[in-house]
Amino acid sequence: MQTPGSSLATMRAATPLVHNITNFVAMNVMANVLLAIGASPAMVHAREEAAEFAALAQALTVNIGTADPDWGAAMYEAAAVMGEADRPWVFDPVGVAATRFRQDLSAKLLDLKPTVVRGNASEILALAGLGGAARGVDAGDSVEAAEDAARDLASRTGGVVAVSGPVDFITDGTRAARVANGHPMMARITVMGCSLNGVIAAFCAGQPAFDATVAALAAYGVAGEVAGETAQGPGSFQVAFLDALYHLTPEALNTAARIEVVA
Amino acid sequence: MQTPGSSLATMRAATPLVHNITNFVAMNVMANVLLAIGASPAMVHAREEAAEFAALAQALTVNIGTADPDWGAAMYEAAAVMGEADRPWVFDPVGVAATRFRQDLSAKLLDLKPTVVRGNASEILALAGLGGAARGVDAGDSVEAAEDAARDLASRTGGVVAVSGPVDFITDGTRAARVANGHPMMARITVMGCSLNGVIAAFCAGQPAFDATVAALAAYGVAGEVAGETAQGPGSFQVAFLDALYHLTPEALNTAARIEVVA
Amino acid sequence: MQTPGSSLATMRAATPLVHNITNFVAMNVMANVLLAIGASPAMVHAREEAAEFAALAQALTVNIGTADPDWGAAMYEAAAVMGEADRPWVFDPVGVAATRFRQDLSAKLLDLKPTVVRGNASEILALAGLGGAARGVDAGDSVEAAEDAARDLASRTGGVVAVSGPVDFITDGTRAARVANGHPMMARITVMGCSLNGVIAAFCAGQPAFDATVAALAAYGVAGEVAGETAQGPGSFQVAFLDALYHLTPEALNTAARIEVVA
Repeated sequence: MQTPGSSLATMRAATPLVHNITNFVAMNVMANVLLAIGASPAMVHAREEAAEFAALAQALTVNIGTADPDWGAAMYEAAAVMGEADRPWVFDPVGVAATRFRQDLSAKLLDLKPTVVRGNASEILALAGLGGAARGVDAGDSVEAAEDAARDLASRTGGVVAVSGPVDFITDGTRAARVANGHPMMARITVMGCSLNGVIAAFCAGQPAFDATVAALAAYGVAGEVAGETAQGPGSFQVAFLDALYHLTPEALNTAARIEVVA
Repeated sequence: MQTPGSSLATMRAATPLVHNITNFVAMNVMANVLLAIGASPAMVHAREEAAEFAALAQALTVNIGTADPDWGAAMYEAAAVMGEADRPWVFDPVGVAATRFRQDLSAKLLDLKPTVVRGNASEILALAGLGGAARGVDAGDSVEAAEDAARDLASRTGGVVAVSGPVDFITDGTRAARVANGHPMMARITVMGCSLNGVIAAFCAGQPAFDATVAALAAYGVAGEVAGETAQGPGSFQVAFLDALYHLTPEALNTAARIEVVA
Repeated sequence: MQTPGSSLATMRAATPLVHNITNFVAMNVMANVLLAIGASPAMVHAREEAAEFAALAQALTVNIGTADPDWGAAMYEAAAVMGEADRPWVFDPVGVAATRFRQDLSAKLLDLKPTVVRGNASEILALAGLGGAARGVDAGDSVEAAEDAARDLASRTGGVVAVSGPVDFITDGTRAARVANGHPMMARITVMGCSLNGVIAAFCAGQPAFDATVAALAAYGVAGEVAGETAQGPGSFQVAFLDALYHLTPEALNTAARIEVVA
């Protein structure tokens, strides 16, 4: 497994164009997160252009947080372009348990075999059909409780599944790892998970998905730890977090990453 | 009347899920405001799922700032769910005087008898049919000029009406109160009013609407005063404001609240 | 040519209502930028009300960053209102080279002869039909390479064209100027260009477009330089930038502006 610092350096050298069809809440922060860490974001969702734009991008993220049927169609078409081109795309099933619309859309997107699925424990459980505790968009389940569901899901999609939480769990169905970086304040700020999707996609561009996902989670968590050292609350945390992503070096990432490879 | 600090503590203990159908400008800040003060926000607007999602929520906010006909239908259906379930919803008639579309949509939503209507003086005057001075989304009228309109409106809806301004006015048609907390910089930052809707909704979840609205306005204003002590301008004010909401204690709120009950 | 400080003072005295049909990523920041510098923003895009709202505004901005066909129609109708009323509107052809949809929509909007077109070099080259290097929404071309295209485009529209970059280029087809203010961190933060459109529109309200555009670019760049003095990264830069816009005085602007009038 390459070091997370090496993945970060590779990503920055490539400055991948990451196409995001994400929710309205996340768009601005996600673009700033991607710019801060060294990627090039674009938010494009209209069905009239999403697939055409995807063909220009090195990676794609799809997030159903504020989708509607038109956006769902654009997501499907853009993801299909990435699949055909063998380029990575990340799927975030935000609040999938909450409504029938989200479940139907998520099922369709899963059929396209996302390179990476990332969600909280409740979302991964719901997506795997195991009945997660749905409550809005927050996780009511522990990461540990979703590990089997994540392995199942990864085996079904042939991709990587990442469960976000205090300690993240990442698996490709065979291998698995835990990333213990992060800061409790990240749970008190909106769209931290949504923005992370973009970072995962950026790392996956031209890099092996499992290692890249682990590296992206570690980088994100380490930046959160740095931000937490000076933040006074959720407002100043967000500011310090963008600054920390910008200044994060491969060396600092390798030193601070707490990655455990599990069976 | 319970103390505002008691309302805050009750809200935090419940961590209510607040469903927001709000404008695009407000979504991110509003979610962060709700997380900072201790509630759980979700932004869900597609007609395919808004009513279904509302059934999961403890409170709802509806804001017509960037609505269109589809969103208007989703607002109506979600608000109807809340009304039938006897759960609180807050209506913000942003810029209602500006266009016929806003007037028609607002009239329909008013028919559903919002638990709380919150707006600036011009919006409340326009909504009450008294001809406020429409100029974009800013208030051209004083809070005092809208007090009678607010009382009228509250009598018609059977709910609470809150007029935001340097000194807020809150009435349920019978009782009335003024809240004199806040900071002038709050008028130089966008979506401060929109985000406040969510805080009102969170306080109203399971609490009496008049007292809860007064408490929410006081909490918001006190956090603004704390932020104003260190802010250098509108950028640093926003950061300090989220930090202040996060750190606001019931005791500090009770000490700093400037609430006047009026006839 | 009047001083940029004089343009700033004139704009602030008028507090123009600026109607923005902009992309989702930019809405919040753009509103805050306009409030910070002293204008009054409104984001209104539904086709049911965009033209009606435009009739109330002193200036309009149109940005195709996240447009769809409905928004395109609203843009066209609102821009037509401004043209008929001889009030200024600013057009930003975000990522125009990337998709056919953007090209078609941009061609239609250009026919309405925008008061100001603002974009990066690649966008201006693409818009002028000269084949810019399209790569997402970032500029792959230098400002110098787009100067002839900008002059051509200005001659065709009869308006002003501004090319953003390390040194901005502004022309009305006859006159031209360069503005050398700004800070490198502005390229690492999203929607800095989009938000600038609003500032240009605000300055153009009731003022000659060429001088007003030059003044707006200088004001924006000077605020960026002030922010850069204290910022630790892209997070703290954004905070400091809003504070700097708020505190920018006409005198400080005149002292710091680096404007060069060229043939």
